Amino acid sequence: MATDTPMQLGMIGLGRMGANLVRRLMRDGHRCVVYDLDESAVRELEGEGAVAARSLGDLVAKLERPRAAWLMLPAAVVQPTLDQLAELLDPDDAVIDGGNSYYRDDITRAAQLAPRRIHYLDCGTSGGVWGLDRGYCLMIGGEREPVARLDPIFRTIAPGTGSAEPTPSRQADGTAPQGYLHCGPSGAGHFVKMVHNGVEYGMMASIAEGLSIIEHADAGLRKRTADAETTPLREPEAYQYEIDVGEVAEVWRRGSVVGSWLVDLTADALARSPHLEDFAGHVSDSGEGRWTVRAAIDEGVPTPVIATALTDRFESRGLGEFGDRVLSAMRSEFGGHAEKRSRP
Amino acid sequence: MATDTPMQLGMIGLGRMGANLVRRLMRDGHRCVVYDLDESAVRELEGEGAVAARSLGDLVAKLERPRAAWLMLPAAVVQPTLDQLAELLDPDDAVIDGGNSYYRDDITRAAQLAPRRIHYLDCGTSGGVWGLDRGYCLMIGGEREPVARLDPIFRTIAPGTGSAEPTPSRQADGTAPQGYLHCGPSGAGHFVKMVHNGVEYGMMASIAEGLSIIEHADAGLRKRTADAETTPLREPEAYQYEIDVGEVAEVWRRGSVVGSWLVDLTADALARSPHLEDFAGHVSDSGEGRWTVRAAIDEGVPTPVIATALTDRFESRGLGEFGDRVLSAMRSEFGGHAEKRSRP
Amino acid sequence: MATDTPMQLGMIGLGRMGANLVRRLMRDGHRCVVYDLDESAVRELEGEGAVAARSLGDLVAKLERPRAAWLMLPAAVVQPTLDQLAELLDPDDAVIDGGNSYYRDDITRAAQLAPRRIHYLDCGTSGGVWGLDRGYCLMIGGEREPVARLDPIFRTIAPGTGSAEPTPSRQADGTAPQGYLHCGPSGAGHFVKMVHNGVEYGMMASIAEGLSIIEHADAGLRKRTADAETTPLREPEAYQYEIDVGEVAEVWRRGSVVGSWLVDLTADALARSPHLEDFAGHVSDSGEGRWTVRAAIDEGVPTPVIATALTDRFESRGLGEFGDRVLSAMRSEFGGHAEKRSRP
Amino acid sequence: MATDTPMQLGMIGLGRMGANLVRRLMRDGHRCVVYDLDESAVRELEGEGAVAARSLGDLVAKLERPRAAWLMLPAAVVQPTLDQLAELLDPDDAVIDGGNSYYRDDITRAAQLAPRRIHYLDCGTSGGVWGLDRGYCLMIGGEREPVARLDPIFRTIAPGTGSAEPTPSRQADGTAPQGYLHCGPSGAGHFVKMVHNGVEYGMMASIAEGLSIIEHADAGLRKRTADAETTPLREPEAYQYEIDVGEVAEVWRRGSVVGSWLVDLTADALARSPHLEDFAGHVSDSGEGRWTVRAAIDEGVPTPVIATALTDRFESRGLGEFGDRVLSAMRSEFGGHAEKRSRP
Repeated sequence: MATDTPMQLGMIGLGRMGANLVRRLMRDGHRCVVYDLDESAVRELEGEGAVAARSLGDLVAKLERPRAAWLMLPAAVVQPTLDQLAELLDPDDAVIDGGNSYYRDDITRAAQLAPRRIHYLDCGTSGGVWGLDRGYCLMIGGEREPVARLDPIFRTIAPGTGSAEPTPSRQADGTAPQGYLHCGPSGAGHFVKMVHNGVEYGMMASIAEGLSIIEHADAGLRKRTADAETTPLREPEAYQYEIDVGEVAEVWRRGSVVGSWLVDLTADALARSPHLEDFAGHVSDSGEGRWTVRAAIDEGVPTPVIATALTDRFESRGLGEFGDRVLSAMRSEFGGHAEKRSRP
Repeated sequence: MATDTPMQLGMIGLGRMGANLVRRLMRDGHRCVVYDLDESAVRELEGEGAVAARSLGDLVAKLERPRAAWLMLPAAVVQPTLDQLAELLDPDDAVIDGGNSYYRDDITRAAQLAPRRIHYLDCGTSGGVWGLDRGYCLMIGGEREPVARLDPIFRTIAPGTGSAEPTPSRQADGTAPQGYLHCGPSGAGHFVKMVHNGVEYGMMASIAEGLSIIEHADAGLRKRTADAETTPLREPEAYQYEIDVGEVAEVWRRGSVVGSWLVDLTADALARSPHLEDFAGHVSDSGEGRWTVRAAIDEGVPTPVIATALTDRFESRGLGEFGDRVLSAMRSEFGGHAEKRSRP
Repeated sequence: MATDTPMQLGMIGLGRMGANLVRRLMRDGHRCVVYDLDESAVRELEGEGAVAARSLGDLVAKLERPRAAWLMLPAAVVQPTLDQLAELLDPDDAVIDGGNSYYRDDITRAAQLAPRRIHYLDCGTSGGVWGLDRGYCLMIGGEREPVARLDPIFRTIAPGTGSAEPTPSRQADGTAPQGYLHCGPSGAGHFVKMVHNGVEYGMMASIAEGLSIIEHADAGLRKRTADAETTPLREPEAYQYEIDVGEVAEVWRRGSVVGSWLVDLTADALARSPHLEDFAGHVSDSGEGRWTVRAAIDEGVPTPVIATALTDRFESRGLGEFGDRVLSAMRSEFGGHAEKRSRP
Repeated sequence: MATDTPMQLGMIGLGRMGANLVRRLMRDGHRCVVYDLDESAVRELEGEGAVAARSLGDLVAKLERPRAAWLMLPAAVVQPTLDQLAELLDPDDAVIDGGNSYYRDDITRAAQLAPRRIHYLDCGTSGGVWGLDRGYCLMIGGEREPVARLDPIFRTIAPGTGSAEPTPSRQADGTAPQGYLHCGPSGAGHFVKMVHNGVEYGMMASIAEGLSIIEHADAGLRKRTADAETTPLREPEAYQYEIDVGEVAEVWRRGSVVGSWLVDLTADALARSPHLEDFAGHVSDSGEGRWTVRAAIDEGVPTPVIATALTDRFESRGLGEFGDRVLSAMRSEFGGHAEKRSRP
């Protein structure tokens, strides 16, 4: 099932994502030149058939023109690597940024490389640690010609049509049904990926909230402290359920309206850790959610659900503490409610 | 691929859901007695092999003991039908409410039927108009024995294990991997279904908000009226994208973290109506979302995303109008902002 | 400045609110019979001129007919006290519940007392620990006649017209400008008080959030850990302010649009505890916020701000922890994000 | 009651705010030179005692050195005016921007003027159309020396200590108790004003939501269409109140916890327009709310209430329509819910 049109690609950054992209490409008959600061990562892929590069210059030297170099790097390292690379590349070469860069940086970078006629493509890449077998959803921005030239690469990385039923009302054209899409000019790929992650925040929060309601469906069975500060449960008889949250996640995977990969993953985590004791619940946010809300505000589009899902992550990390203390202070002032500091 | 253990079931209510349940059951070798106020619906299923009943009494007469009668009725009709049915049934018969009843009503109903030893099961049924082929996700509440007795029925209606990959970390036990689950005592099934719909509200809202941001990514290309009441877009150059929302939904279906049945359906709708001109956007809510938020509040569980998704539906139907006018009034008072009535 | 029409009132419950109501009434020339389980509270007010009662029966015996008895009790004690009292009172007597009862209980209680022709008034009482001098805002529900009869009592308790400038566009009629209002039939008083508290939640949250943004305006001065899980601040130069939050609260008290009693109280708390180190930030909610959101949902009125303010209080008490762990689990599943349990 | 230290100020921009600032200053004994593109505005204030300027150059010529020029202009006009003014001013002159500029622009502007040793102060000014008599709350950013030099001006414009009771726990120092505050270096004034407006959004939304719940407390009296798409009200007997919202706003003005200038203004609007029929409810947002949420996100501070209040304003102007149509489309897909376009 190898590709009809084998190509050569340079991969810079061999973390989990970068290494698996290389593997998926090589499986399908593409040739890869690989580079990472960590030599052992380079050697491992060399052992699997990739051509090892000892430096950025070496990588560039080993690529045929017009070159294609894919960056799969932490956001903070992209710009310096790109600066260095720009000195080494020739006109008509292409760089693909496959990480989670801010789309506004893409616009700037593409403009900086344009005078040298180096093509810069931004490629939002979704799929996580499962992409090697499952394929990666690709959201691409940049000029039309280099995107078309690299089509065999994108096609191999993407999941392919077989990974989901065809959309009934849709005519079978374009690349979207294969799991990759040229979304528009520079930045469009990361713009769509950014919003994708915003949607992800909201969906994750919905699932988490729902499962939490089910986990606490036994509220009527628990003793509550009866004091002036705590509302008693009016109808404890309506909250007497001890429901297995993991079983619920599992049953929702089939036939239900909320069926989704996120529910699949949740069911898997709950199968291992039935009350999720293994997790701290300090939920990071890595930029895209913030940028999504900012874009929505700039556009004047109401996105209260995504905005709330974002701020909830801040809450989960304790960042709302000062605000909470303001509330305690006010309650103490007007009602004499004693909420003196109990945290050590 | 017929069932090993054919059973007989009475179906009361032959709307789209009820009729398709009967078809799915008969396909698998079960026998069905069917009743509806609309005689043509009865006759249609009779033509497909079901036994027609002319009345509730007739249906009860045609069922073998211990009987199993499934109600698939609008919420408002469940109680009167049940009252009538209770007079006709015998001890050890079972009634399954497959509609969207409030779980608190289930608790009451089961208690009312208990003295006659009639079993009442509540069965949340998800799958919509696609369930005939895709199967229905079933969330069941009630006593253990009648749930076990009716297992062949639930197994046929549910999607089956083949409808999704196995959960890697899970041992292959229980019925959840087949798409049906006995969640707990009376009401537990509709409780889980209620929360399911709450999760659905949040997921739908997340997707809708995200696609809306993408649809408006051309904000920098549009002329904005420049007046004191409108904030100018500070960086119009960052909003110059004309992105095809339907293509985005399609590409998200494969390999992405937001992959879900709801995205599948959205892609389908957008394939037919690229800017959704066919839809009014007055989004109904049918009870479960409201009940979900109420349960969360009773339990003291924070569910800001689901709550916001719910209130947004109220907004979409214009129910926030008075509040908006209060805001206009205040702004007029303190700032002299003229926002006089422009609606006819 | 004593009242023209001195009356007699029985006060049951001599906590801070009840005791201060008695003092405010006696200052204005009314006579009070007082009762509490805590004898020292009774004796203290006896020393200030009240008539002491040793029991509910004694209190009833010492009141002239038609009697007026005001309950100022924790929510949980209202019903049993009322049951006992109902046995002792005579037709045409009136009971006023001045606490924070759920308005639906008022409807039930009034109906239960109606056959004995005992009048039950629900009276939402706002003003907290400051009401003795400042007066209390009263929101009253119940029949017209007893409300009218007790007008001198309400008038004394309320702040009076002098406590705020007249509303320019308003004609000087009714009692609202004096700070008390007959809102409607049974339950209407506590309904309005319930919503008042819901509004209070939202206003408090707004102020707390705003001050928190100002407290953190030095974000660009702080070192942030640079790892893949933490978004770096893109423009640290825009967050270099070390602003004194207490001074801000103080300046907002005068002439600003956000001027309010809550800002007054916040300024006072910050004057004593400049970073609110004295407060834990575990914010209780005492029922009215929950009931407000439930009422909004029943009515189909969008109240996302009040709902969010409510669920934030749950968050402040750690009730969102399970949901947060679901998020951590999902992130771990799809991205290999390590968020293992760090809490002890 | 004239100021002890009369000063001279140039006012550029004689809209409602600018003109009233001039009047308030002149009342207190300060001298003003005034300029506006609209000559009639200049002439009107000349008639009241101000010195008229025919151009920016004329204004600068008529001011004594070191000059103080206050800009009270629409945001879009500030930069060009400032550019022109910078050419005319001399070292040690000061410009005060009293409008609603984005604080990041202040930082830039101050830096641009620094080489010429022209001082740039940003001064957030709250008080709306009522400030002439009530005074304006001033939040000031910039260098210490020019702020100190202009103290008599700020003191006159601010409301003064008499406008609110002293904060009990506070020592009587600083200027905040008079209603003006030097918040910090350039931008700090508009930063605090920006957040002030964010708080204002949240408070306004809370009040609006609460009054809307009260307005709809008669939900149980209204006929609802009974169809599958509409949830019937379960307990109509709990929503039988016809409460006068204007009276409620009035009573909340005195003694209640929600007492605030915004409630005062709402009561006034309701006194004129009892159901607010005069207002369209298309609520503008003028930048500060958006910037506030952006600052919160940058800082990582959770502000779900302010964010929701902002997005609700977008909703009120119909900007959520595309998202709503996505929801309709999904519901149509999975449930066959007919929600075809009904808007003309």
